[in-house]
Amino acid sequence: MNIDGKNYRTIWFAENGNGVEIIDQTQLPHRFVILRLNRVEEVARAIKNMNVRGAPLIGAAAACGMALAMRAASSDAALAAASEMLCATRPTAVNLRWAVERMARLLLPLPPSQRAEAAIAEAAAICEEDIALNHGIGQHGLALLRQLYAAKQRPLNLLTHCNAGWLATVDWGTALAPIYAAFDAGIPLHVWVDETRPRNQGAALTAWELGKHGVPHTVITDNAGGHLMQHGKVDAVTVGADRVTSRGDVCNKIGTYLKALAAFDNGVPFYAAVPSPTIDWSLADGLREIPIEERSAEEVAWIQGRLPSGAIAQVNLLPDGSRAANPAFDVTPARLVTGIITECGVCRPEHLRSLFP
Amino acid sequence: MNIDGKNYRTIWFAENGNGVEIIDQTQLPHRFVILRLNRVEEVARAIKNMNVRGAPLIGAAAACGMALAMRAASSDAALAAASEMLCATRPTAVNLRWAVERMARLLLPLPPSQRAEAAIAEAAAICEEDIALNHGIGQHGLALLRQLYAAKQRPLNLLTHCNAGWLATVDWGTALAPIYAAFDAGIPLHVWVDETRPRNQGAALTAWELGKHGVPHTVITDNAGGHLMQHGKVDAVTVGADRVTSRGDVCNKIGTYLKALAAFDNGVPFYAAVPSPTIDWSLADGLREIPIEERSAEEVAWIQGRLPSGAIAQVNLLPDGSRAANPAFDVTPARLVTGIITECGVCRPEHLRSLFP
Repeated sequence: MNIDGKNYRTIWFAENGNGVEIIDQTQLPHRFVILRLNRVEEVARAIKNMNVRGAPLIGAAAACGMALAMRAASSDAALAAASEMLCATRPTAVNLRWAVERMARLLLPLPPSQRAEAAIAEAAAICEEDIALNHGIGQHGLALLRQLYAAKQRPLNLLTHCNAGWLATVDWGTALAPIYAAFDAGIPLHVWVDETRPRNQGAALTAWELGKHGVPHTVITDNAGGHLMQHGKVDAVTVGADRVTSRGDVCNKIGTYLKALAAFDNGVPFYAAVPSPTIDWSLADGLREIPIEERSAEEVAWIQGRLPSGAIAQVNLLPDGSRAANPAFDVTPARLVTGIITECGVCRPEHLRSLFP
Repeated sequence: MNIDGKNYRTIWFAENGNGVEIIDQTQLPHRFVILRLNRVEEVARAIKNMNVRGAPLIGAAAACGMALAMRAASSDAALAAASEMLCATRPTAVNLRWAVERMARLLLPLPPSQRAEAAIAEAAAICEEDIALNHGIGQHGLALLRQLYAAKQRPLNLLTHCNAGWLATVDWGTALAPIYAAFDAGIPLHVWVDETRPRNQGAALTAWELGKHGVPHTVITDNAGGHLMQHGKVDAVTVGADRVTSRGDVCNKIGTYLKALAAFDNGVPFYAAVPSPTIDWSLADGLREIPIEERSAEEVAWIQGRLPSGAIAQVNLLPDGSRAANPAFDVTPARLVTGIITECGVCRPEHLRSLFP
């Protein structure tokens, strides 16, 4: 998508594959910084520190990390070590494991001398496919929003939680792909952006990318969405996902479940926008089976922002001696989900298998 | 309650009623500052700026403000002006209007020469009564928590939203009164403290006062409570209220409704702790009838904390050009409320009238 008129992706190979470059998402919205990563260890650190984040982008970054690893050393041992290192960075998003396994499946049968070149080609293919999947989600979601606009006959108010925009993918986004498609198609709309504590990816990333694209939006606290739904101010909720089970349970950023409950209670449709690599066909019961990452309490205790001077700073929010807990995801049971938007179409969560025979 | 071993209230008359002193709640948890207020205008500003906040404390502060007004000028016009100024500060909490009307009802029939003295006595009585009401809530809530502990036979995990502790009242608190009573009675317990964006009264005030009293607690983002309930980590939710209608709809800090939905969905009891002045018998349908204060978007865009240097600073969280909205309260329909804890006992919301015949 465009940033001040210039087209960007979130990740790309530099110098014929000697390195990759990423938009450093820990610096947004106040600073736009490109980070160069030359080794798989740097990619693993960037995933762990959330310089890149978002389930699809994590998968694409891990694939690029595998390619950098093969450039440095292409033995079976190096392949296994790179796979293990990348898979250990974040436990919840299934795309990470999916991408690493796809790379390993391709590379392992090849002679080591051919692995570096093949790895770059495959990682690039994964990036291109991500864009195509998200474009498909955008088109299917656009049809839904057209129907909603025809029914409402007034500008649509959509609510989203966390960042599942183009910054969470290689391009286009998942939850925001339908919104960009609808906006570009001239459907009048406005987005309520949950700030999404603790890391504020809504306020920092979603608001930033919507603003750069010109989409009208308003940032709200995570507490406000239920009240807005009670008063008819939300026409639909769209979120992304870090993992969706075969029966349609949706694991996404902590707090998604609360918005799904409020949507259900107020008859507001609740959609998860999910490219197929986010579906974990091996799991059914998301609440019992999906591992939920517990991140550092420091993410709750400290928050980053811009001082009146313009400098970026972190401030502590807690009294001395108080501790914090930081579960990073929750699971929305399929019964609360109106529909899942995939690159193959939209379906009720219980019909997910029929979309992918 | 105690702060580092010294007993405090949140507000008290100083110098025979020439002024009032308050704990400045905008400085907590990082600085403990006593503010002196000498004129009704200063009290009104302190309520509006939330140097004092919490429905019961707002009521008590307004009563003290009326007393300061009468000391300066005790004519009918001065009485009317003070009433109007104080009632205009915050629209949602009913205690404010209740306290101002009670003061006016007492003062208006008196000759102006007697009003100053009578006003101080009445404001002091309102403060004492608040403490007694909250103590009653604590005792009735303690009985509930005793039952819960007997059923669970392990340390209780309670969740609270915003600050309805002693800092929200003159002393004891509403939602926290049962928790303090249970803790003091030796029932082992732990409190999940919602940080409560945008002003973080949970992280800044509830965590601070629980810590000062020695109550085990963990701060979480407002997004986390639903997940904790799904996994059996919350035994009960207790919140305060800014206004409760005759049929038991509970208006409280924005986000309370989301926690009530999650509690209902997971079979976790949800209690509102409410002294009788918080009940607005003139209203039934809280969603339609209670005015919801829309506060400044700056409260969402900026957050206050402590820099690593120890200095207090505000940082901006939003991209340039993004706007924010800030509805300050929401309404939890009575159907989601397990019980209302009052100074007269605990009841189902639909039986509220029978407690106050």
